[in-house]
Amino acid sequence: MNVKTPIDFWFDFSSPYAYIASEWIDALAARHGRSVRWHAILLGVTFQAAELRSPVAYPLKREYVMRDFARSARFEGVPYVQPGKFPISTQNAARLFWHLTASDAEYGKQWARCALRAYFTRGVDLSDPSTLASLAADFGIPDAAAIWSDQHWKEVLKCENDAAVAAGVFGAPYFIVDGEPFWGNDRKAQIAACLARICSPQLARQD
Amino acid sequence: MNVKTPIDFWFDFSSPYAYIASEWIDALAARHGRSVRWHAILLGVTFQAAELRSPVAYPLKREYVMRDFARSARFEGVPYVQPGKFPISTQNAARLFWHLTASDAEYGKQWARCALRAYFTRGVDLSDPSTLASLAADFGIPDAAAIWSDQHWKEVLKCENDAAVAAGVFGAPYFIVDGEPFWGNDRKAQIAACLARICSPQLARQD
Repeated sequence: MNVKTPIDFWFDFSSPYAYIASEWIDALAARHGRSVRWHAILLGVTFQAAELRSPVAYPLKREYVMRDFARSARFEGVPYVQPGKFPISTQNAARLFWHLTASDAEYGKQWARCALRAYFTRGVDLSDPSTLASLAADFGIPDAAAIWSDQHWKEVLKCENDAAVAAGVFGAPYFIVDGEPFWGNDRKAQIAACLARICSPQLARQD
Repeated sequence: MNVKTPIDFWFDFSSPYAYIASEWIDALAARHGRSVRWHAILLGVTFQAAELRSPVAYPLKREYVMRDFARSARFEGVPYVQPGKFPISTQNAARLFWHLTASDAEYGKQWARCALRAYFTRGVDLSDPSTLASLAADFGIPDAAAIWSDQHWKEVLKCENDAAVAAGVFGAPYFIVDGEPFWGNDRKAQIAACLARICSPQLARQD
């Protein structure tokens, strides 16, 4: 297997754990000579396919994860302010991502980082069309609404959701490293160990 | 707050992640001058209270976690062999735990470690009365069936399940460190950081 195989990384613009992971995955990959392919998806679609619900749909679990989002961000040194409106619909932000990614994957990532940070540090409501259009314009996309209304980018996002389900993705962040699946921001240390040993089954103990 | 407050640790004898955590929690606590109070519970009761289901109840998630159990054990340097019969009923093993713990908490822990290792490394079926009685006899409990059939220990386990639900426990392993809840074997690094800083909100970045 080519050791330079890219890492696949699935995220939803409304997932706090995916936002945290988006802040470390490329740096971690680069330390091991890897690139990362980002995939914006709609978690609602993968939840439905796996007959799962969001952790925040369960009151007791919601209370825990709302605390854990901020704590996990602090642990990674990532700024985090719990958005007042949460979770939100993210199909328009995702369609913009795929539009940009089609011509330049790095530009797509820049948009993703811009939008994730806007939502998770300043509470910018990515589900509100005028707010999203304004954020996109500031980023350098003057015609954002025309893009996310375009049937083509709607279809691309649908295909990407289907591809995620086919790949076994049932939550976010989700990673595949040389065929090995990892679910969750909390799998960072295991991913690092996997990359260091090129997914050898003998992972060293880490305290 | 007294910095020597014990850490509370909830587990089910049928939880792989709780088994892995049982192998590191006391050593980690000891490095910070802490003791650990173990609580054997029935995850089915906490799942029901939180309207949750086991991750292995969802086909796609089951496939992932079955792989992640073994990988997470390797990552911690803990021996693990997926039991053929899984998950299993664990009320009898838990009643024995509470019987022993009532007179000697350390002896209760020894039984828990014995039974968890028997199940997760040799596939010893803790749900089978004669198998469990035999394991208990080898451990030094000659009258195990009389204990787990005793209404008193049934009531104690019920109370402990209720207490866990009241404490917010909705999965295993679950920990409370100075009032801060942590869910999952994968929160080890955050617990370590919390103990090092006595739960200061400023957790340092860890790569």
